[in-house]
This record gives sequence, C-alpha cells and structure tokens, in this order.
Amino acid sequence: MERTVSCYDCGETYAFDARKRCACGEPLWFDSDPDGFAWPETGSVDDMWRYADLLPVSDPVGVAPGGTPLSRAERLDDYAGCNLFLKHEGQNPTGSFKDRGSAVGVRDAADAGFEWVGTVSHGNMALSTSAYAASADLECAVFVPAETPAERLELIARHDPHVFTVEGDYGRLYADTLSLPVDVNFVNSDTPLRVAGQKTVAYEILEQLAPAAPDAIALPVSSGGQASAVWKAVRELDRAGLLDSVPRLYCCQAAACDPIATAYRNGDRTVTPVAADETIAVSIANSDPPSGTRALAAARDTGGAVVSVPDEDVRDAMRAISTRAGVSVEPSSAVAVAGVRHLSRTGALEANDDVVAILTGSGYKEDYDTEVRTDTIALDDVERELASIVDT
Amino acid sequence: MERTVSCYDCGETYAFDARKRCACGEPLWFDSDPDGFAWPETGSVDDMWRYADLLPVSDPVGVAPGGTPLSRAERLDDYAGCNLFLKHEGQNPTGSFKDRGSAVGVRDAADAGFEWVGTVSHGNMALSTSAYAASADLECAVFVPAETPAERLELIARHDPHVFTVEGDYGRLYADTLSLPVDVNFVNSDTPLRVAGQKTVAYEILEQLAPAAPDAIALPVSSGGQASAVWKAVRELDRAGLLDSVPRLYCCQAAACDPIATAYRNGDRTVTPVAADETIAVSIANSDPPSGTRALAAARDTGGAVVSVPDEDVRDAMRAISTRAGVSVEPSSAVAVAGVRHLSRTGALEANDDVVAILTGSGYKEDYDTEVRTDTIALDDVERELASIVDT
Repeated sequence: MERTVSCYDCGETYAFDARKRCACGEPLWFDSDPDGFAWPETGSVDDMWRYADLLPVSDPVGVAPGGTPLSRAERLDDYAGCNLFLKHEGQNPTGSFKDRGSAVGVRDAADAGFEWVGTVSHGNMALSTSAYAASADLECAVFVPAETPAERLELIARHDPHVFTVEGDYGRLYADTLSLPVDVNFVNSDTPLRVAGQKTVAYEILEQLAPAAPDAIALPVSSGGQASAVWKAVRELDRAGLLDSVPRLYCCQAAACDPIATAYRNGDRTVTPVAADETIAVSIANSDPPSGTRALAAARDTGGAVVSVPDEDVRDAMRAISTRAGVSVEPSSAVAVAGVRHLSRTGALEANDDVVAILTGSGYKEDYDTEVRTDTIALDDVERELASIVDT
Repeated sequence: MERTVSCYDCGETYAFDARKRCACGEPLWFDSDPDGFAWPETGSVDDMWRYADLLPVSDPVGVAPGGTPLSRAERLDDYAGCNLFLKHEGQNPTGSFKDRGSAVGVRDAADAGFEWVGTVSHGNMALSTSAYAASADLECAVFVPAETPAERLELIARHDPHVFTVEGDYGRLYADTLSLPVDVNFVNSDTPLRVAGQKTVAYEILEQLAPAAPDAIALPVSSGGQASAVWKAVRELDRAGLLDSVPRLYCCQAAACDPIATAYRNGDRTVTPVAADETIAVSIANSDPPSGTRALAAARDTGGAVVSVPDEDVRDAMRAISTRAGVSVEPSSAVAVAGVRHLSRTGALEANDDVVAILTGSGYKEDYDTEVRTDTIALDDVERELASIVDT
C-alpha cells in the first residue's frame, strides 16, 4: 500500500514523504487502514511493535518502547474524584513517552538512507531522539532553547548528539527545521512519524482495559502532538469496531502557559500564541503549539475539554502521586492528575467515571527540592529510635 | 502448602516467619515447588506477577514491576566480545531491579498485618521500598549510611518515609535490623522475601529467550541477594525441566570493593570483609556482603566466576552502552558489561556465546559529569550551522 499523509482538518492527502504540513497550514498525520484491525494475539509481542500493522514502519530499533504498566490507583480516587488509572510512560527506555515516536522516526530515517536525524526540544524529546539515533548508528542534531538547564543537557550528551543551543523564538525554530534544505530528517514533536509512534500509548490503554473503554483519558499537552496521536488512535480503533464508546479526551496545561486552554475557554476555532509566564511544568511550556488547533479539535470532537491548572496544584498533585501511588513523576505529568481533580470538582468528571491519566515522564531526571526529614543517629541507638516512632 | 525457608548450604528448613538467617549463619531463601511448573500462558500477565505460583505472595501491590525489555545489543557485540543481550531493569517503576523484591516484601508485610516496613540501603532499595510502602499505605523506616548524598535522599523523601542517617558500620547495621525486637518488617537486600521477588528477573530472561537458554548471565553484585535470587530461579527452572542447559552465572564487582571476587580468586569457600576504596559504582560498594558466600556458591555451582573491574573500565562501559545501545545506566550496571568484556578478553566467554547482562538501574537518578559539546547559535544561522556539520 502506498504510504500517505493527510490533514485532519481540510482532508487533503499527500504522498508520505512530500511534506509535513498541509497547504492549509495544519499538521499532517499518517494514514493507516484500521478496517479489519483486531487486537493482536495475546503475548505475541508486548511492546509498541505489537501494533506494527497500524504504523508506517514495522522493524524495531533500539530498546523497544511501550508495554508500560497501566495501574489502578485506588489510593488516589478521593483526590482525583473518580476511578483513576495511571499509564506509566516514564517507564519507557529514556524515561518518557517520547520514545514511541523516536523509535518510529529513527527507524524510518534509517530505512530511507538518512545519516542524520534531528529534533527541536526542551529536553525529553532531545534525549529520546539522541538515544534512538545512537542505537541505530545515526548521527543526531539536537536544537534546544538557550535557557535549557545544564543538568538536562548532560543527560542528552550521554548519547553523543551534536547539540545546538539556539537563541531566538522557539516556535519559529521549530517551524523552520521542518523545511530546511539539509539532509537531516527532523522528527519534531508533531511530525507525522512521531505522531504515528505516539499513537501506540492509546492502543495500549484501550487494549489493557478492553472490552470496556474508559470514560476519559487526560494528558498533559504541549505541542499538541501527543493529543493528536491519542485522538488518531481512538478514531482508528472506533473505526475498527473495537470501542464500546469513545473516551473523552481532556488536554491539560499549566495555567502559566496555556494557549490551547485559552482558545478553548474563548470558544475559538484556532489556537494563537500567548505570552507565557514561568511554570514548574517546563516540558509542556509551549506558548506557540504547532498542533494546538488539532489538540483543540481532539478535545471538542470527543466531548472532552482543555483545562489549565496553577503550579501550586501541580506541586500538590506530584506529592499526592508519590505518597499515595508510589510514583515519582515530572511536573508535567502531575498536570494531568491536577487536571483530573479540577475536572471532578467542576463536575465534568463524576465519581464513577473511569479515567486514565497519562504520566508522560519520569521524575528522576531532575531535582525538585523535596524537603528531607532525616534523623542522624548512632548505630547503638537504632532500636530505641525506631521503637520511639513505631510505638507512637 | 505450609510456607518454609531453607538454607542453600546446610539444608536446614524453618517455618517461613521464624527467622531470616540459618543457625549455621548463612541466609535463608523461600522454598517454592517448581515440580510441574510450566511457562504461563502467553499474554495472561506480562509483569512479575506472571510467576506468582513460584512466589510467597500472589497479590500485586503498587505499580507492577517486571516485564522489562530484553534487547539484543548487536552494536555492543564487538565491545563485549560475545552476542550481548541487555536486560533493562532500570525500566522498573522506581528505576531499579529492587522493585521486584519490594513488591513481594511489602505485600507480605501488609498481609501479615504490619504497619511498618523497613530497609537498610545505599539508595535504590530505600527508594523502592519507600515507594511500595506508600502505594500500600504502610509506614516505612529507611536507614541509610551517613555519607549518602543529599540528592539521593531527596528522591527517597518524595515517598515520605522516615529516614534515619546512621553513623557506624554498615554491615553491622544491616545485620542488627534483621533481629530487632520492634514491630517493623525489614525487607533487606538478601532476606527471603526480597530474594523471592528478585528471582523473577531470571524467570523473565529465561522465558524471553526460551527454548534456548543463554550461555551466561552476568550481573553486578553487592550484598549477593540478587545473585542468590538468579541462582535460585535457575535451579527451579532446571528442576522444572524448562532449561536445555544451565547458564553460567558471572558476578561482577568494582575492583575498589570486591570481597566476593577476592574470595573467588583466593579459592576460599567463604567471603570475608575487605578494606574498600571509593568507587564510582556506589550502589554495589559493599565490603561485607551478607550473601557473599551464597553468591560465590552460585558462580561456582553454575560453572561461572566472580570478577572485578577497575573504575576506568566502568566509565568506558557506561559510555559504550549509552552511545551504542542508547541506554543510560548507573555505574553499577555498567560493571556487568565491563565484566563481560573482561571475561571475553580472558577467554572465559567466547564470540559465539549468548550472554545476558543485567542492567540493574537507570542512569537518570544522578549526574555523572558528562561533557557537553554544544554550540550556541542564533536562529538565523541554523541552516548554515547544520549544513556545515552534515556535509563534512
């Protein structure tokens, strides 16, 4: 079958490698054929390559992403105001959901004979793309904003990419790289290859819960690429007749940088850039999201919404997740749980709703100044000190 | 079936909860019944609870550990001198292999009505035990050595355990906590519950490669608990008739702190404490390993060996793993790959041997001062700068 991409909005179709943006300006996505698709035989493959029939490439590269746990987090139900499930994307090989798209993008670039891949990223995607390029023996060019912290650059540098720190507008940088006349295959956040790979998280969630689809899926949204992918997956599975209902998609942003939520609140059809303040949720702080309008469409089309939450709620959710579910997440992931709590409080979600929050990234890549309560004691005092806290 | 524990060395058997050490002084392990055990039906459960029939508890708690990828790392074959497979234990919920034992230990403690669990650890185990205690709504007491870095304590503190920083001998602290008359269930590194959970990594490796068993499994060794667990699993699967051959177990240590390798080199039957120097592989720097003699027996019994490698080889292996396999590991994990390289160079492993190296922990929890080569450029120079490196 000839590979094509198409526009979710105007419906225009193009050859797969022709372009990454539609003539109308909106992003394109990979056309798959879900007619007749069924859940793969159990146990055949339990990572993302299980869904190769719906992907533009089928050969694995590097450590296979996916197959991440979906856990029922009963101890967070009260907090979240619903029946909460957590999808643990931080357990992917480089600690974030980005590996799914990187594996597809790097595999395709290698198959097409590229020697270089590239990406524009605040951190997770640069790390992931660099790692998969290393495993495929490709060179990797990474473009990061000037304010990227040194500790994040050090993690990326372990895989030996060529790192460019760029001074200037991030949105323009992102857009520019998609049409550079240079022999580098850019696998940016909302490009067709990456979005194709990112779809697999939704396939997994919906297969893990099958035959009953959850009432809602909540996820943090930055560029809108991941929300687009989840939407695409839901449409495909619905087309294949594998869903008893279509889950509502809730896009969650940090209030300090919430262009998509702003457009949703205003009833706008398109997303426009906002002036942003700083937020603890740095990896989703995108004031000019390239797939923002598509994410907005995903929320509206499925009966969901776009919400934003203040940083204090994000910190509170991080703490709730680590002390009640035993999971360390990055702040951006906590935005999804804070968003669910907000939606429950405002009545959009109900106590008996089954809701999946996608925890997009591990909390181990950075420090968050957690307060440590520690007693320094002598070896001979261990029994007495322990007894004193246990017996109280 | 009544639950029992027994001594690998003298064969004495005890009731499960009676004690954690044999009267002969050696550690005990959980007695399972592998007769008639078969690989579970594919796809039924793809995490460690898949092997519940061979575990002392069967109900999951928290995010299920296990189901980690086993990848074929062709780009490291030359480096390793054999056909190298990597088992990615850093992809467990808290980023290390310790979660398997924590899940079993915390589940059992909760079932037995304990309100407190405890552990003595340099870092990974404290983090893991704290996380699983949080998910089970148990209190957790963590004892760490005085020199534990603040950044490691911060990760642990996210799950809100009670942290005791203890001044004094780590080996004595470890041993003391196993018999404290306090109502806290200690799930230390080589206790029967933890070793039972840790077995599952070997079940997974051997099922993932079935029907052909690998020629060897190499792993970093600290207390000896994990090596004991792998040995126990191999014995069980061999007893169940599921192995076409028994893999040789290679225990790998850092040369600066290698009591088990020292005993192996000297031909000793038991391991005695050594005076240790500092090593980059901090999480396996145990100069007085409580299951050292058991780990030594595991290596000898399977026809393997115990080796140690200098820190410069560990750093080199870390770099090889991240630039050729795309995986960030902690130094202790790189010890396994450095050990494999050493074993190939000395003829113990051959080029056509299938060897699995267990990468026990993620590299994301700490900084390792990676050199970052970065060019700071202006937005308008992106095309020119990129072209200049791609075309050379």
